[in-house]
Amino acid sequence: MDTRKLYDLEPSGNCYKVRLFCALLGLELDIEPVDFMAGAHKASPLIDMNPFGEIPVLEDGEIVLRNSQAILVYLARKYGGESWLPADPVEMARVVSWLMVAESEIARGPNDARLHDKFGFPLDIDKAREKAARILGILEAHLSKNDWLALDRATIADIACMPYVALGHEGGVPLDGYPAIRAWIGRIEALPGFIAMPGLERTA
Amino acid sequence: MDTRKLYDLEPSGNCYKVRLFCALLGLELDIEPVDFMAGAHKASPLIDMNPFGEIPVLEDGEIVLRNSQAILVYLARKYGGESWLPADPVEMARVVSWLMVAESEIARGPNDARLHDKFGFPLDIDKAREKAARILGILEAHLSKNDWLALDRATIADIACMPYVALGHEGGVPLDGYPAIRAWIGRIEALPGFIAMPGLERTA
Repeated sequence: MDTRKLYDLEPSGNCYKVRLFCALLGLELDIEPVDFMAGAHKASPLIDMNPFGEIPVLEDGEIVLRNSQAILVYLARKYGGESWLPADPVEMARVVSWLMVAESEIARGPNDARLHDKFGFPLDIDKAREKAARILGILEAHLSKNDWLALDRATIADIACMPYVALGHEGGVPLDGYPAIRAWIGRIEALPGFIAMPGLERTA
Repeated sequence: MDTRKLYDLEPSGNCYKVRLFCALLGLELDIEPVDFMAGAHKASPLIDMNPFGEIPVLEDGEIVLRNSQAILVYLARKYGGESWLPADPVEMARVVSWLMVAESEIARGPNDARLHDKFGFPLDIDKAREKAARILGILEAHLSKNDWLALDRATIADIACMPYVALGHEGGVPLDGYPAIRAWIGRIEALPGFIAMPGLERTA
């Protein structure tokens, strides 16, 4: 039986990564909306599935997985062949190095800025914007010379890094001065099966 | 020719992860000390190898890799067979989910607290200690029921997460109240080939 279920919050870029990648893979996905405002992610049954008290959580049959980047790894290896996360050591490490950028630099930059501006999280907005500017500069330089982040094609590195970059304008981090980043987002949008989410900065 | 070289800083837990894992794998490693105080990691040639301006950086023949977690992935897949990072989708995702904990919760908790106390980084020490307490609580609960973080044996998840947890006492985050975490560190110390680093809280 196909019981692939995503515990989901629509405005979450981390949940969107999973929705987007399933769409690109052509995978069915049952969406289970989580009542985030009521703290459902910090109560049973979700806290038992993920002690970190966060979403997304993916249930695939008997398997329960936390963390959006790890879920992308699972889906890529299970359903994506060698295309989205190759087993080759160097290629895999290159992809993973960008998953870490999604988990760290992008989370603490444009994502934190958006959490502050859009959702009222009490964090240091100046530091978030400063970190956002730094990672956007690195991304712009990298994408001026490369079409995709990790390899010569789209991988889960691109899927993991794109959402909070493209949502940054909701945290006062627009992409006006970053033509290479905007072109990269456009390439992702052009992938067969692409789906958007509310607030995503579109390049078209 | 064997020209595996680590651009290294001895007190860095991230560099230590790579030294430790190479020791466990029985791999030779040329150590190239980086003059961190002089900012060598932010100048050529290192900034050209890693635009993020951070160490460790690993050079293996023609290959250059950044980010300690990604370097562990490379070494595990290249030299570790299926043991430290299996190709199975579920097992790989479980390992990667803990690599993300090393990159995020542990970095922003015990590592930030140590950066503040030991190296004078100007960051919010109260928030770092609060985050440290939270992740240590999650780790303690998990390790009360599991010998290792991700699978039924040591993986790179353990290598990635252990150092900054065991160095936390240098940031005012000791492990006195965490017997399961201390037992886990002891199991890692008992792995054949284990090497320590200065400041590592020992359990023996």
